[in-house]
This record gives sequence, C-alpha cells and structure tokens, in this order.
Amino acid sequence: MFASSNKNKYEEAKGILAKFGISLRFFKCNLQEMQADTLEEVAFHKALDAFSKCSKPVIIEDDGLFINSLKGFPGPYSSFVFKTIGNEGILKLLKSKRSATFQSVIAYYERKNDVQLFNAAVSGKISQKPIGKKWGYDPIFIPQGQTKTYAQLEEKNLVSHRYLAIKKFANWYLHRQESNDR
Amino acid sequence: MFASSNKNKYEEAKGILAKFGISLRFFKCNLQEMQADTLEEVAFHKALDAFSKCSKPVIIEDDGLFINSLKGFPGPYSSFVFKTIGNEGILKLLKSKRSATFQSVIAYYERKNDVQLFNAAVSGKISQKPIGKKWGYDPIFIPQGQTKTYAQLEEKNLVSHRYLAIKKFANWYLHRQESNDR
Repeated sequence: MFASSNKNKYEEAKGILAKFGISLRFFKCNLQEMQADTLEEVAFHKALDAFSKCSKPVIIEDDGLFINSLKGFPGPYSSFVFKTIGNEGILKLLKSKRSATFQSVIAYYERKNDVQLFNAAVSGKISQKPIGKKWGYDPIFIPQGQTKTYAQLEEKNLVSHRYLAIKKFANWYLHRQESNDR
Repeated sequence: MFASSNKNKYEEAKGILAKFGISLRFFKCNLQEMQADTLEEVAFHKALDAFSKCSKPVIIEDDGLFINSLKGFPGPYSSFVFKTIGNEGILKLLKSKRSATFQSVIAYYERKNDVQLFNAAVSGKISQKPIGKKWGYDPIFIPQGQTKTYAQLEEKNLVSHRYLAIKKFANWYLHRQESNDR
C-alpha cells in the first residue's frame, strides 16, 4: 500500500516500482505529521500512523527543499511554505547564494516495530525565476549538471530525489525477498 | 505543572498566574509537535504528550505570528521560521500590506480525555524594521493602538496574546473551583 492524500505521488511511485516488478495499491488518507527538524523523523511517525490506519505493509513518502543560505528553510515544512508564501516568496528571500537540496524519504512499515527508512537527495540551485508549469517547487529547482528546472525536465521522474529514494527501497525489498527465498 | 523546553515561557506564565493565586511548577521537557494548520490542533496533541510524560495536571502553551498578506505564514511554524529566515526574512517578504495577528493557545490537560483549550489573539502590524532587543518576533510586531513594538513595550506582559490566553485559563480555573465548592 502507498498511503498519501496525494494521488499524483502514488501514481509516480507506482510507475517507478512497476519497473522493478513491485505492485502498489493506493491508500488515500490524511496522515499525522510531526514537527521535526529532519524528514526522517517526520517520515517515521507518519509511517506509524499509516500502519495504524491501514494495517497492511505500507509505504509513505515525505520530501522537502532545503536551501543552504536559509539554514535549511523550508525543509520539513515545504508544503506549508508553498501554500503560503509560494515560489514568489522563496525567490524574494534569495540573493546570490542559491544552492539547495531536494530530499526525499521513503518509510516502509511492514509489521510492528519494523520501520525501514530510505533517503535520497539531489543537489542543485534555485533559479532566478519560475520556469515551467508543474506544481510545487519544480519550476524553481535546477538539479546539478542541468540547465533546466525540474518542471522543464521531461525525464524528471528518472533523476528526481523521489525516484532515487523509491529505487533504494525497491533494491532493498527485492534483495530481501531473494535472501528469504534462499 | 507548566511543560515546556523554554524556562522563560514558564516564568512569564508563573508571574501572570500568581496574580490569580494559582501556583505553577516547571516541568522541563521536549514535547512532540504536530504539523497542523491551527495552533489549537498543535496545542491539543502537545498537551496529550505532556500529560503522558508528567502524569499531573499540566499546562502547555503554543503561539504563532499569522501575517494576513502571507496567508497566515509563519503561523504554527513560527519557531522554525524564526530559526531559519528570521525577522530579516519576514521583512523581505512584505511590502505595503503588513497586518498580522499574534495568537496564543493554552491547553490544560487535567485527566484522561479532558483537555481544555484557551485561545487569544492580538491584532497589529509588522514594523518596517526590527526595533528593540527582545527575542523572537517581538522586535517586528506592533500591537494595534500602539506605536511601539512588543520588544519596546515595558508592559508587554500585560497586553500580550500570551497574557490574554493565560488570563482566560485562570478565569475558567478559578470559576470552576468556585462551582465545585458550592
């Protein structure tokens, strides 16, 4: 199960995991989120809540944009910050130092007291203005080695922080199955 | 008991409650905070956590600065936003529309399944620059009807959002005692 209130996240994860032969079902729900300085802590508690609601092996994902010159802002509160000050606000806060990291954490809760965490990060910088029409911070984040924003990159789902974290999970999951099969 | 990681908050609450003849003790701890759009929700869960840790009738307080033109930012995340972008960041985000509300919620957890919430708000505006040396958003918040920031006002603790919320609690607490005494 993939627990989220956001069907787009589920579709993205489903597409990635399908390539690894792992099937996924959507568990639509609102999950409790903690205030914490790291995504890992937020994801851990979110996974406990998700499992308590769906009682099946469940994946949750949490991501955030961490801007270095702003001490990691908006970080774990990226969603709230996007809904309030948005990309326009982020751009007002920045001058020359624009480096940032987009981070994703996947938490997998299989059974009681067994949560696995998988994190990934993509370095990059904040563009001078929003380019591209996708949602969230995609129009202002340019991954390292690229000249286009996430919103412009057609292959975003093959390079993104979320893709990398899901791939880590998939590798662990399949490897573990193999170990169990031996 | 007053549960907080911040002794200054406790001292302020103790001083206010002493005027009502209510004594208070400090329970220093780090409390779990939820991500939520309202302070009430954050405070409610924080009170559950505080009671589970100290097992005595316990007060917690949560406050936040809500800027109208920024859709309530930084709101429930005021503490994180202060630690990252700070007052300098807030000022960069604002132009002419500067109205804001400082809100406080007191949650009192006495026994299982009994949480009382008391909220208060002070309207005002954000100053053009920080004035005064106090911590937090005090140097940039000018309460309505005043020309000075919270940081400059000597009588801040007699007009503040926190004072008003604690006073509401005290009135309820004393009145309830009277009802019980009858």
